[in-house]
Amino acid sequence: MAPKDIVYVNGAFVPRAEARVSVEDRGFVFGDGVYEVLRIINGRPFAARFHNERLRRSLEGIRISLAGKETPESLTEIGRHLLEENGLLQGEATMYMQVTRGAATRAHNFPPPEIQPTVYISVARFTPYSDLALNGASAITHPDLRWGRCDLKTLNLLPNILASQAAKERGTFEAMLIRDGVVTEGTKTNFFGVLDGTLRTHPCDDHILPGITRSILSELARELNVDLEETPIQASEIPLLSELFLSGTTTDVMPVVTLDNKPVGNGKPGEVTRKLQRVLAESLASGGD
Amino acid sequence: MAPKDIVYVNGAFVPRAEARVSVEDRGFVFGDGVYEVLRIINGRPFAARFHNERLRRSLEGIRISLAGKETPESLTEIGRHLLEENGLLQGEATMYMQVTRGAATRAHNFPPPEIQPTVYISVARFTPYSDLALNGASAITHPDLRWGRCDLKTLNLLPNILASQAAKERGTFEAMLIRDGVVTEGTKTNFFGVLDGTLRTHPCDDHILPGITRSILSELARELNVDLEETPIQASEIPLLSELFLSGTTTDVMPVVTLDNKPVGNGKPGEVTRKLQRVLAESLASGGD
Repeated sequence: MAPKDIVYVNGAFVPRAEARVSVEDRGFVFGDGVYEVLRIINGRPFAARFHNERLRRSLEGIRISLAGKETPESLTEIGRHLLEENGLLQGEATMYMQVTRGAATRAHNFPPPEIQPTVYISVARFTPYSDLALNGASAITHPDLRWGRCDLKTLNLLPNILASQAAKERGTFEAMLIRDGVVTEGTKTNFFGVLDGTLRTHPCDDHILPGITRSILSELARELNVDLEETPIQASEIPLLSELFLSGTTTDVMPVVTLDNKPVGNGKPGEVTRKLQRVLAESLASGGD
Repeated sequence: MAPKDIVYVNGAFVPRAEARVSVEDRGFVFGDGVYEVLRIINGRPFAARFHNERLRRSLEGIRISLAGKETPESLTEIGRHLLEENGLLQGEATMYMQVTRGAATRAHNFPPPEIQPTVYISVARFTPYSDLALNGASAITHPDLRWGRCDLKTLNLLPNILASQAAKERGTFEAMLIRDGVVTEGTKTNFFGVLDGTLRTHPCDDHILPGITRSILSELARELNVDLEETPIQASEIPLLSELFLSGTTTDVMPVVTLDNKPVGNGKPGEVTRKLQRVLAESLASGGD
């Protein structure tokens, strides 16, 4: 028997293939919504507290209010139920939670207050990128064309899609986005680099998503007495990097050993990268928060 | 009997209230699509050729290929059928055409080639803003937070929504977006201003949508021997404007007589504005192209 594939849409648990929303949903016509992706290990959402906090912040950032008694926590509970329903309580999985401003006659302005947000939650089996994490991935640089509020995790993802596809077509794993001569982040990851022995990453501002793995790694680096500076890496400093890696909920710590067809450092995953890979793996195995 | 309200989704003509798309549609999860809004007068789409051309350009810009024999023109034909079905062959209406990259397992990269785009077409009764056009509207200035490809008419409209809502909450009609000290355009309109007797508007580049009404008005201005320069209006020049107006498919020529609570010029629609209102109305009445 094939595993069940049940998702949640607005109060109903339905097979994925039958799950539908109105063509007037503001997600569909405007990308007017926000989302989170959680890492699930043996049925337990990793760092759920941080994801729920960020979902709350994204909702506030674009001024969507959840309906009635719904909270990010209650949506995560629904996600847990989906894990059970879909037989995903063992091993690795992801949980996707999306909230849009609901379905209403198309108009840019917010719909009337009686319009309820649309909630969509889905879970899926996940296989970590183990081989790539061992050997290192390649990446390209790409112009950062995104809007001015990249700190909100919204559905307006076209620039991310186009850059991600450009990376794929160049046979690489990720695009390193460059805005005004500075490395901001990836299309779905944050970036860390090692320069003159110091670990560096872009500070949290409007130009990057405050990554949860980024934040956990920063804490772990401090515990390991790794010198960490939240100073952006300049595009002009890329040739000087001895190590480079991505971080993300499903990416963990991913060494970047080739950038724009040139080796990074000695072309192998570096020492700081390996250390952080190890301690993050331990944190994931222990269930995190 | 209530008028019918039939829309088109992926080959089917269905009542709007029953029209649905998959939760995995890339429109719904990514805003991964493009659209057009056409003005319909007595069943005839105004400037259809230009809208179809722009839809083709937007599709190419984000690399969506229509399925099989579909073209922007064939979609407009479906829209014409909807006008008939919904009893909108007389008077004013709008036609909305949207194409997304289709429904597929969520991943930033483009889906496999067998995934067909989703087409959604809808028509509705339209009432022009006649009183406002007569007396003039008010507007606010607002930071332009949009991405780097505003020349493509995509579904990634969150910055437009937030600025439009800000304008509404200040009791105004539109937000005039300012990027790097320059007026780019509105959330759903282009802007023209008169300064020292010269009509000025932002040139066509990545920071504005090449508006079809903008283009028609530029042509009409030339025919009227109105001095027109495609030189952006600086935010610092706003106090010097003698006239200001918006242009758009459903906005026509809309005088802006109050900006950020201050009168523009003498606080009444100006002479150039009135002239262009008149000739655009004639063009609309005659069916345009």
